[in-house]
Amino acid sequence: MRIVVLAGGIGGARFLRGLKATAPEADITVIGNTGDDIHLFGLKVCPDLDTVMYTLGGGIDEEQGWGRSEETFQVKSELAAYGVGPEWFGLGDRDFATHIVRTQMLGAGYPLSAVTEALCARWQPGVRLLPMSDDRVETHVAVDIDGERRAVHFQEYWVRLRASVEAQAVVPVGAEQSTPAPGVLESIAEADVVLFPPSNPVVSVGTILAVPGIREAIAEAGVPVVGLSPIVGNAPVRGMADKVLAAVGVESTAAAVARHYGSGLLDGWLVDTADAEAAAEVEEAGIRCRAVPLMMTDLDATTAMANEALALAEEVRG
Amino acid sequence: MRIVVLAGGIGGARFLRGLKATAPEADITVIGNTGDDIHLFGLKVCPDLDTVMYTLGGGIDEEQGWGRSEETFQVKSELAAYGVGPEWFGLGDRDFATHIVRTQMLGAGYPLSAVTEALCARWQPGVRLLPMSDDRVETHVAVDIDGERRAVHFQEYWVRLRASVEAQAVVPVGAEQSTPAPGVLESIAEADVVLFPPSNPVVSVGTILAVPGIREAIAEAGVPVVGLSPIVGNAPVRGMADKVLAAVGVESTAAAVARHYGSGLLDGWLVDTADAEAAAEVEEAGIRCRAVPLMMTDLDATTAMANEALALAEEVRG
Repeated sequence: MRIVVLAGGIGGARFLRGLKATAPEADITVIGNTGDDIHLFGLKVCPDLDTVMYTLGGGIDEEQGWGRSEETFQVKSELAAYGVGPEWFGLGDRDFATHIVRTQMLGAGYPLSAVTEALCARWQPGVRLLPMSDDRVETHVAVDIDGERRAVHFQEYWVRLRASVEAQAVVPVGAEQSTPAPGVLESIAEADVVLFPPSNPVVSVGTILAVPGIREAIAEAGVPVVGLSPIVGNAPVRGMADKVLAAVGVESTAAAVARHYGSGLLDGWLVDTADAEAAAEVEEAGIRCRAVPLMMTDLDATTAMANEALALAEEVRG
Repeated sequence: MRIVVLAGGIGGARFLRGLKATAPEADITVIGNTGDDIHLFGLKVCPDLDTVMYTLGGGIDEEQGWGRSEETFQVKSELAAYGVGPEWFGLGDRDFATHIVRTQMLGAGYPLSAVTEALCARWQPGVRLLPMSDDRVETHVAVDIDGERRAVHFQEYWVRLRASVEAQAVVPVGAEQSTPAPGVLESIAEADVVLFPPSNPVVSVGTILAVPGIREAIAEAGVPVVGLSPIVGNAPVRGMADKVLAAVGVESTAAAVARHYGSGLLDGWLVDTADAEAAAEVEEAGIRCRAVPLMMTDLDATTAMANEALALAEEVRG
């Protein structure tokens, strides 16, 4: 079975662990969000790709869900001693090495997809990890600070401002001019099922779908497309999905997110048992819906979720 | 008193500590060798400048004489896990930060002299540290490996090959086209004394003198120029001076090094008490010579050496 997964960071990475556990023989291609990539200290940092790579490769900090395990912060604290920031972004020493290798390969002319493959040669994540695009796409969030409208990088919105101000708009800068990375459209065309893990529907899955050609390829693939709600009980399980959903005029409910994706794209939708009453509304929108536990508390729970998603895909396939 | 010192790495840096101790009121300008600078992992590394900066700024690893104290090597070991080298060059995590800041500033268009000043704003070395040139000069060593003549970077010769093969020639690539950094010629013209610490006469002091204009400025300054022999008992106190002296046809003796600098440049020369019998030969070459203890075993010994150098300068001045 060939499965394509559109993944953001922590939520996507943890879901993929469950998917690998429930479908160990499956051929899994992950299309990773690169909209929150950022240049820091002259280095190219790809937080979502790295979270997937480290999580599946056994190098993740399990507790915080991002960054390397047994991490130290000597480089960062020395940079701060020179007065060089930003201090709000937590780059650890082990993590630095990944960005140094990536930046050197990009500088040598390799596209991000080839660089990602080279990095994965070490981590062996057990999936094929593709960036959504080799082109630069950068998610900016429009905010009002002191009465003035400003566009800040997504990382600045999320990590520095902690999403404490209202997001007025979310713009994946460069998306319109970007093209899918090599292998992205091919993997979708050859997929037996496409999954949207409980990643952020705006700044993760939404950004991937903003790369021209990807949404169309999924809609036209003619295979079940099943998603899992990142909203449980009208609030995001983690992150700031509520803030960025509001910016695009979507309510923070499991049903509203399904309608946002739409029946033209989505065939099946899993909501949490806490949102069982939303199922009827989703089905009315033409999307098959089941209510199952959606909290990724441990690998067993996550594996069960992935299993439900595949079961719903089979049900949709009929 | 305005003192100009031409410095390499460890020997120069330690001597400067003694000089600051014996002449705390002096205005000291250090012209640092940049011929053994190297690009590693996309970063610009300036070993000699950093050794001076860290030593005088209190950040040096006292035991090894180079690199940062309380250093860790997470970045390097992670780079190795990616298969990215060279592994033979010991870049620590704290040290990495210096090279990241330097590389970013150079990338932004600042010349190395301005970058060095910015780094020193943190370290407060108590001297004015100038690179010999803002231009790229790179010391290469010609060696025969498996019957073939090859030019290797000085760091490769010294750190990787540990100077275990004969140096056939030493070439400061780019020196002829280089110009002294801002402040270098001015500081020499305004100096009351110029000192050559017991640094390597070929790949440290020799490289600085290879920048067109510096040797001439020193010769024409009309002030005492006094050096300290890095050769004691016919062997270098540390490093590979014997190997690179042989490559330029100079014997590894305290007297031969003085003659190599020459009376056109050098007015006074300190040899170690172990080489007292060499004094006559040096004086015959037209260079005032004294035999004093030249082992920098501790700050007291180093301070005494610096004091002897200043005393010899006064004697020369007459």
